[in-house]
Amino acid sequence: MIPDQLTSGQYQTVYNLFSLVIAAQLFTALYLVAAQPRVLARYRQALLVSATVCGIAAYHYFRIFNSFRDSFVTDATGGNGVYTQAPGESFNEGYRYVDWFLTVPLLLVELVVVLALAKKLQTSLLLRLVPASALMILLGYPGEISDSDATRNIFGLLSTIPFLYILFVLFVELTRSLDRQPETVRNTVSKMRILLFATWGVYPIAYLLPLLGFDGATAWVGKQAGYSIADILAKCLYGLLIYRIARLKSFADDP
Amino acid sequence: MIPDQLTSGQYQTVYNLFSLVIAAQLFTALYLVAAQPRVLARYRQALLVSATVCGIAAYHYFRIFNSFRDSFVTDATGGNGVYTQAPGESFNEGYRYVDWFLTVPLLLVELVVVLALAKKLQTSLLLRLVPASALMILLGYPGEISDSDATRNIFGLLSTIPFLYILFVLFVELTRSLDRQPETVRNTVSKMRILLFATWGVYPIAYLLPLLGFDGATAWVGKQAGYSIADILAKCLYGLLIYRIARLKSFADDP
Amino acid sequence: MIPDQLTSGQYQTVYNLFSLVIAAQLFTALYLVAAQPRVLARYRQALLVSATVCGIAAYHYFRIFNSFRDSFVTDATGGNGVYTQAPGESFNEGYRYVDWFLTVPLLLVELVVVLALAKKLQTSLLLRLVPASALMILLGYPGEISDSDATRNIFGLLSTIPFLYILFVLFVELTRSLDRQPETVRNTVSKMRILLFATWGVYPIAYLLPLLGFDGATAWVGKQAGYSIADILAKCLYGLLIYRIARLKSFADDP
Amino acid sequence: MIPDQLTSGQYQTVYNLFSLVIAAQLFTALYLVAAQPRVLARYRQALLVSATVCGIAAYHYFRIFNSFRDSFVTDATGGNGVYTQAPGESFNEGYRYVDWFLTVPLLLVELVVVLALAKKLQTSLLLRLVPASALMILLGYPGEISDSDATRNIFGLLSTIPFLYILFVLFVELTRSLDRQPETVRNTVSKMRILLFATWGVYPIAYLLPLLGFDGATAWVGKQAGYSIADILAKCLYGLLIYRIARLKSFADDP
Amino acid sequence: MIPDQLTSGQYQTVYNLFSLVIAAQLFTALYLVAAQPRVLARYRQALLVSATVCGIAAYHYFRIFNSFRDSFVTDATGGNGVYTQAPGESFNEGYRYVDWFLTVPLLLVELVVVLALAKKLQTSLLLRLVPASALMILLGYPGEISDSDATRNIFGLLSTIPFLYILFVLFVELTRSLDRQPETVRNTVSKMRILLFATWGVYPIAYLLPLLGFDGATAWVGKQAGYSIADILAKCLYGLLIYRIARLKSFADDP
Ligand SMILES: CC1=C(/C=C/C(C)=C/C=C/C(C)=C/C=O)C(C)(C)CCC1
Ligand SMILES: CC1=C(/C=C/C(C)=C/C=C/C(C)=C/C=O)C(C)(C)CCC1
Ligand SMILES: CC1=C(/C=C/C(C)=C/C=C/C(C)=C/C=O)C(C)(C)CCC1
Ligand SMILES: CC1=C(/C=C/C(C)=C/C=C/C(C)=C/C=O)C(C)(C)CCC1
Ligand SMILES: CC1=C(/C=C/C(C)=C/C=C/C(C)=C/C=O)C(C)(C)CCC1
Ligand code: NA
Ligand code: NA
Ligand code: NA
Ligand code: NA
Ligand code: NA
Ligand code: NA
Ligand code: NA
Ligand code: NA
Ligand code: NA
Ligand code: NA
Repeated sequence: MIPDQLTSGQYQTVYNLFSLVIAAQLFTALYLVAAQPRVLARYRQALLVSATVCGIAAYHYFRIFNSFRDSFVTDATGGNGVYTQAPGESFNEGYRYVDWFLTVPLLLVELVVVLALAKKLQTSLLLRLVPASALMILLGYPGEISDSDATRNIFGLLSTIPFLYILFVLFVELTRSLDRQPETVRNTVSKMRILLFATWGVYPIAYLLPLLGFDGATAWVGKQAGYSIADILAKCLYGLLIYRIARLKSFADDP
Repeated sequence: MIPDQLTSGQYQTVYNLFSLVIAAQLFTALYLVAAQPRVLARYRQALLVSATVCGIAAYHYFRIFNSFRDSFVTDATGGNGVYTQAPGESFNEGYRYVDWFLTVPLLLVELVVVLALAKKLQTSLLLRLVPASALMILLGYPGEISDSDATRNIFGLLSTIPFLYILFVLFVELTRSLDRQPETVRNTVSKMRILLFATWGVYPIAYLLPLLGFDGATAWVGKQAGYSIADILAKCLYGLLIYRIARLKSFADDP
Repeated sequence: MIPDQLTSGQYQTVYNLFSLVIAAQLFTALYLVAAQPRVLARYRQALLVSATVCGIAAYHYFRIFNSFRDSFVTDATGGNGVYTQAPGESFNEGYRYVDWFLTVPLLLVELVVVLALAKKLQTSLLLRLVPASALMILLGYPGEISDSDATRNIFGLLSTIPFLYILFVLFVELTRSLDRQPETVRNTVSKMRILLFATWGVYPIAYLLPLLGFDGATAWVGKQAGYSIADILAKCLYGLLIYRIARLKSFADDP
Repeated sequence: MIPDQLTSGQYQTVYNLFSLVIAAQLFTALYLVAAQPRVLARYRQALLVSATVCGIAAYHYFRIFNSFRDSFVTDATGGNGVYTQAPGESFNEGYRYVDWFLTVPLLLVELVVVLALAKKLQTSLLLRLVPASALMILLGYPGEISDSDATRNIFGLLSTIPFLYILFVLFVELTRSLDRQPETVRNTVSKMRILLFATWGVYPIAYLLPLLGFDGATAWVGKQAGYSIADILAKCLYGLLIYRIARLKSFADDP
Repeated sequence: MIPDQLTSGQYQTVYNLFSLVIAAQLFTALYLVAAQPRVLARYRQALLVSATVCGIAAYHYFRIFNSFRDSFVTDATGGNGVYTQAPGESFNEGYRYVDWFLTVPLLLVELVVVLALAKKLQTSLLLRLVPASALMILLGYPGEISDSDATRNIFGLLSTIPFLYILFVLFVELTRSLDRQPETVRNTVSKMRILLFATWGVYPIAYLLPLLGFDGATAWVGKQAGYSIADILAKCLYGLLIYRIARLKSFADDP
């Protein structure tokens, strides 16, 4: 699936995007850590988990960036030429799946914590959602690295089953939870629901791009862009929204 | 637009400037973080955002520095010769635009927070300024990396429209805000306004240099110097001014 | 014992696993440090030691990752080929043993601290367990790096003696300690006991793989996977469990 | 001015000195940050500025070290031979001047803050001293990198004018300030005055070495040693003295 | 004195030892910083100095490790061959002496602080011990890097004079100090005395190894091992003991 060559423009686009994601994740993580004293102690757990998610993503994008830089090369002066796959260096799609394997469960924990559900419901939700998300990611990986469209299709489909299950459970629970929220935060929680559904939906679409008739390099660049932007929304923006909810709730609890 | 060769003196100038900007941004960021306990809690948000802006810039200048060092090379002993573009390595102007894309909105947030405007006005200002700044940067990029003067002109012009809009809105609001400020900080806020207009104005001028009849390498070095110095003023000096305002306001509120 | 060649798939598996362990250990360490204020002062020592253990492991896996990356190479485009041992670069199994030499005693200290045993019993336990663990690791190393199956067998066997002694002492003490625990934490301590026995048992099994009739590369990849996963469970999961116990005890002491 | 070759001993001397300065500056910076809570809030500003100065110097010496290591090379086994300038790599004297450009103004700020002069006098002093120091450094640089002794002489002379002006102003003010100091710190402030004059005097002497009849390599090594040792005294030792004054004043104010 | 070649086993031993020392020093430093809030304010100075000592050592061992890795090379597959000195790369023994030059005075300061001697005695002790230790190290260095046994002997002997003087002064003072200590810490201070004498004694013995009839490589590996282990004991273990004394004294002062 990794294209044999990229134009200079395609190379620059992916390169700059990856660098942007590093900066976004790293500084969101640092910001959320530094903002800890600005919310009540009871909401710091959620902020800390958000910061951890962004920190883990910064680490992986740093590796993804280096992997990309080393695995596509050109001989053209000033880099103004066609980039081809380097000898002995592989662009490692695996970093993303390792990242998701660690961060998706944490995002779910965060969500459940922020909704302030009853302890029992929290546990029961996580016991359903975390294994489903692990399954979704493990099933996606063989399709991602396969060179055959059929394999990609099959594993994509299999991975979609736990994906839909997660969305269904979340939709039901987020809707129910809205009533329990104080007036002031209801609006933000509702926005968060939209954000969550909108961004999580980007991942399978990006995954599908190579199957949608785009030619190799274009589809691949689109996929990288899709995953990168979705990761900024699902981690950084999501983390900042959680910070906002925590601020609002802190004011509501102790004005 | 990237020159085919630089003299040893031009290479050293750009090299030392980039290294200076790294040090300035990095240590301003660290200083602002460490200075947090010296202002009242209500002003820490502004300091933290300033620190984040400088931190993001330090990251990007670190990359810009490495990109420059790797993309211009010489064979002369002790580096005392003409530097030419290296094979396979490109000087990436994109880092600046990624940096601005993240930091300009943050600078606007900072400004609006420090002026302590009414919540409603804050939101309405940001909803106008942030999209305008994103547009300004996105429109500037294609001109920046283009090899044709015509393209550079057109995109420069297009980018100037949101730029002038931002300046206009800011001018009106900063003027209005001056009356609302306590006596002691009015002076500093007024200085900040001058700083903001003076430094933001440097960017389009630096952009124009290649069009002003300077030869390739000279114009390019001038542009790098212009952007670098403007970035120090618009981020570090601006951040330190905000720190000063926050200190003065802290004394005024709780003497 | 180090295989002469790995398939591309085997190389990727080990590569991604090592990177996963770095991320897991590093961010668990950072999380445990940042979570310090969330438990009572008297339980911070245990958290700090846990964080140190994960930090030391992150350092060693960083080295292990680099050692692996540099010591297996291919010339195939995009890295899609057979990987062979590089000239002049050795995969250093020693890092693991250095890591265990530092972290196993710390894990024992942690355990003893968390169980809140009487001071005297603590000292007597550590005086028995720490030397035994040092012996276990020192005896394992010559077998690990030997190319002869006989040497591997003999040192493995010798190392198992202190291993069984440690398990025996721990089993007796953990069982006794359960009664002393407040109601609310008894459950978690009991889980910790199962975790400890289950994960520590993985190490000798991984060590044995090459002797169980698997061919060279398969056994070696299995061994690396075994050690890596066991290290995540015995350090990260264990540290997070200790955090949980500390939280529960903090609530119990000062509700 | 950069010598064509260095003996192995000269290379080692400069190499170890630069590494020593990195360690000294870095750990003084970290120490001063960590020591913050040990002085009263009103003296923390001075400590923080000291820490920033040492941090900036650590950054620049790290670059100077790498620049030196890369720009002088040998082929001799074990490095036991004559070192010559590498092709394409230049030893960058500019780092020092960038460093001084940032740190000398900060050192002056520090001094003025610690002397606890009246606000008005502080401002008036800084408005005279900071521009003079900038001038001193900017005038020194062209002489430093020039290959001609005449240029070196002229710029050295020009740079000495603001230098003497600074010393004169400081001498007058430090003397006056001594009376205003509490009994207990008078002694330390007086020591600081001697330190300041003694160390600042080293810089122009080191600059002059190449003109004092020493042969190229010897003079150059002497200059590097002179600058390095002066930087340790003027930044680290000076910062630690300021810490001491702050401690003594803290006790005096709040025994 | 640096051997022309090392066996694979000797190379691995030194390599793993250096990596162990990095981990030990780095994490002891971090631990001591994080443990600061666990002792009374009056004992934090000693902890901070201990942490600084270990931090400085971590820095130098990081450099020593890299210097060793780069200066001994082999062409054998998987690194399974004889290692010889690389062209152009020198193993730098100087790092140790730079390290001692900074850390030995700090260790003496620490000791004097922890013993809580009268201010006057503290000053008088340091005025005798610090110069003696500087002399000891400066005299040792020329012997260490010399290729001649005679030079090694002479400078070793000269260096031993201040060494014995230090031991003598310390022995007298530590003995006297024991009476002044509270009951509970007397035991630990007494242990510290034994530790100090035992570990400081290792350095001259390691220095002597090449003169004791061992062949080049063996003696050199023994020397590195001796210095490395002594550095762990004299810095990490010593720092942790000081932490323990500080904890005990904190309890004694404020139970
Ligand atoms: C359905 C589906 C997928 C879904 C991936 C998702 C939903 C990833 C979410 C990641 C997040 C939220 C990361 C943020 O930290 C795959 C694996 C691409 C494979 C194709 C089918
Ligand atoms: C008008 C104009 C430009 C304006 C750029 C500006 C105004 C950038 C400001 C950056 C700041 C303030 C960064 C600080 O963090 C471009 C894009 C060069 C393109 C040409 C026209
Ligand atoms: C019995 C045995 C072994 C046991 C190793 C163990 C039990 C390691 C535990 C490591 C831990 C708990 C690390 C976590 O930080 C060896 C040395 C593989 C050698 C073969 C026999
Ligand atoms: C007079 C003179 C000089 C003075 C330099 C000085 C005085 C530098 C001080 C630096 C300090 C104090 C740094 C500490 O952070 C130069 C430029 C070498 C050029 C020759 C003439
Ligand atoms: C007597 C003697 C020596 C003594 C060295 C010592 C005593 C070093 C102590 C270092 C410490 C304590 C470091 C911990 O931070 C040398 C220089 C090897 C040279 C030979 C004679
Ligand atoms: Na590339
Ligand atoms: Na590949
Ligand atoms: Na270059
Ligand atoms: Na280019
Ligand atoms: Na490799
Ligand atoms: Na090997
Ligand atoms: Na060199
Ligand atoms: Na040069
Ligand atoms: Na090597
Ligand atoms: Na040598």
